[in-house]
Amino acid sequence: MTSATLQIVEVGPRDGFQSIDDVIPTESKIALIDGLYASGVRRMEATAFVSTRAVPQLADASDVLAHANDLPGLDCQVLVPSVRQAERALDAGTRHIAFVLSVSEKHNLGNVKRTPEQSVADYAAICDILPAGTKMRLNLATAFDCPYDGSMPAESTLCLLDALVPIFPSAEICLCDTTGRVTPDRVAGLFQMAADRFPGSENWAFHGHDTFGLGVANAVAAWNAGISVLDSSFAGLGGCPFAPGATGNVATEDLVWTFEAMGVGTSIDLTALLSVADQGTRLPGAQFGGRVRDAVRARACIGN
Amino acid sequence: MTSATLQIVEVGPRDGFQSIDDVIPTESKIALIDGLYASGVRRMEATAFVSTRAVPQLADASDVLAHANDLPGLDCQVLVPSVRQAERALDAGTRHIAFVLSVSEKHNLGNVKRTPEQSVADYAAICDILPAGTKMRLNLATAFDCPYDGSMPAESTLCLLDALVPIFPSAEICLCDTTGRVTPDRVAGLFQMAADRFPGSENWAFHGHDTFGLGVANAVAAWNAGISVLDSSFAGLGGCPFAPGATGNVATEDLVWTFEAMGVGTSIDLTALLSVADQGTRLPGAQFGGRVRDAVRARACIGN
Repeated sequence: MTSATLQIVEVGPRDGFQSIDDVIPTESKIALIDGLYASGVRRMEATAFVSTRAVPQLADASDVLAHANDLPGLDCQVLVPSVRQAERALDAGTRHIAFVLSVSEKHNLGNVKRTPEQSVADYAAICDILPAGTKMRLNLATAFDCPYDGSMPAESTLCLLDALVPIFPSAEICLCDTTGRVTPDRVAGLFQMAADRFPGSENWAFHGHDTFGLGVANAVAAWNAGISVLDSSFAGLGGCPFAPGATGNVATEDLVWTFEAMGVGTSIDLTALLSVADQGTRLPGAQFGGRVRDAVRARACIGN
Repeated sequence: MTSATLQIVEVGPRDGFQSIDDVIPTESKIALIDGLYASGVRRMEATAFVSTRAVPQLADASDVLAHANDLPGLDCQVLVPSVRQAERALDAGTRHIAFVLSVSEKHNLGNVKRTPEQSVADYAAICDILPAGTKMRLNLATAFDCPYDGSMPAESTLCLLDALVPIFPSAEICLCDTTGRVTPDRVAGLFQMAADRFPGSENWAFHGHDTFGLGVANAVAAWNAGISVLDSSFAGLGGCPFAPGATGNVATEDLVWTFEAMGVGTSIDLTALLSVADQGTRLPGAQFGGRVRDAVRARACIGN
């Protein structure tokens, strides 16, 4: 499961924007997406098809998708939580669905108004209607930890995977640290257990948050465990609506800086990315994070 | 070199305070040291004996040391850069010297006005005058990376250790990531090389910065490489004087949170520590960092 190249999935336009209350004009979103693409981003969760009443920020999903889908060489995925939203996404021309469900029943009920079992059935129904060539990713939220129930036993996640993996064996499965509370030992441990349990599935990904400062540590742990697809958000956009000051997704620029320093290619130009990240921090209502933006601009540091 | 308990060396009262221009009243320093001690800190770099002209903040070293030395069970070390300052520290009653020199000649010249070779001679001279029972730590700055010269070859660090290790074999040797630019793979790699080269030396420690967001990642990498003594600073105090916004030392509370979550004991009570860290952030002129302060106060986070 090792690779000399890291594939970064830029989730800012979905996970980041979604957490911003002030609705961002569609043209601004498109300009940021273009900037990310110009910096070298070649995979992106560009938007989500969700209830526009619950998430008015993403009501322009079709327009955003239409633009992002046209960027040459960009693998553009969109999040969906249900069959109905998957149908909307497919009608809008998506070529890559990211279905989300949670291991934690409480979290799944809160997030998508379904039990995990109902979501498994939805997932199967979506896989049934996928046009040939459409890619599928499965975002498994609370795979390690739940905001309501705390630490999730690995067996809970693996049991849910028992039901999910056979439905669409070529799907990429992303284990998500929803709360940012997982530690590197558990990230590595769960991916190892998953690899052992599903030896035919090699399409794993990791989605981490930096809430407790573990964003890079967990990304490196996932990489060392053989995971070469990592989600991140430019400027660390993606604050938690219920966690003031506790910014969300690990910052794309932090991953690019770290992995390039480790000799791992990312295809992304850091300088160009930092310029887009700066624009991201200026979005009204944005919560942002990450450390590299400030650090690379600062002069060399003297001390011990 | 493994251990089920992490020994945290709280360096805020030295490395943190030193970087603050506004002179902190001695009684405020003592109150913070007492707070750290009350939270469970049992090892601390409490001050430094350095040029009071160059670092007026630490002109009260003798008074601070006199207080910290009296706290029962506290292993209190003080930084010195020269024989003369070591003599001052010993006269003031220190029982634990931390001598600092840099692998990088440019950095050592800038930091302590000596070539590394001159500092090696100073180290030998200090070891010669150490009263029986006095402990010695060696802080090897720029062991991985230099603000002037960039990445330091591992061989440079190991060659300097060739000269240093035999002088005082029981010394604890702390490899310092001065710039915060080292990555976890290189942290683990250098400690492994050092263990292979000096099989009789088991007293290794790591001092890391969070400037590029790698503070926790590198601490975990050191731990996984068998290092059970880690430096950190409450509230992440220790901004770089030449790096606005680029905070310095990894935050003690981030390490306590992470390692306790990994089942590794630290002896430190997080809640009590957070209260002291809050006080640290309110010091006039302080640059602070870390993520856990905000995160533990925020409500649970919902998302994926």
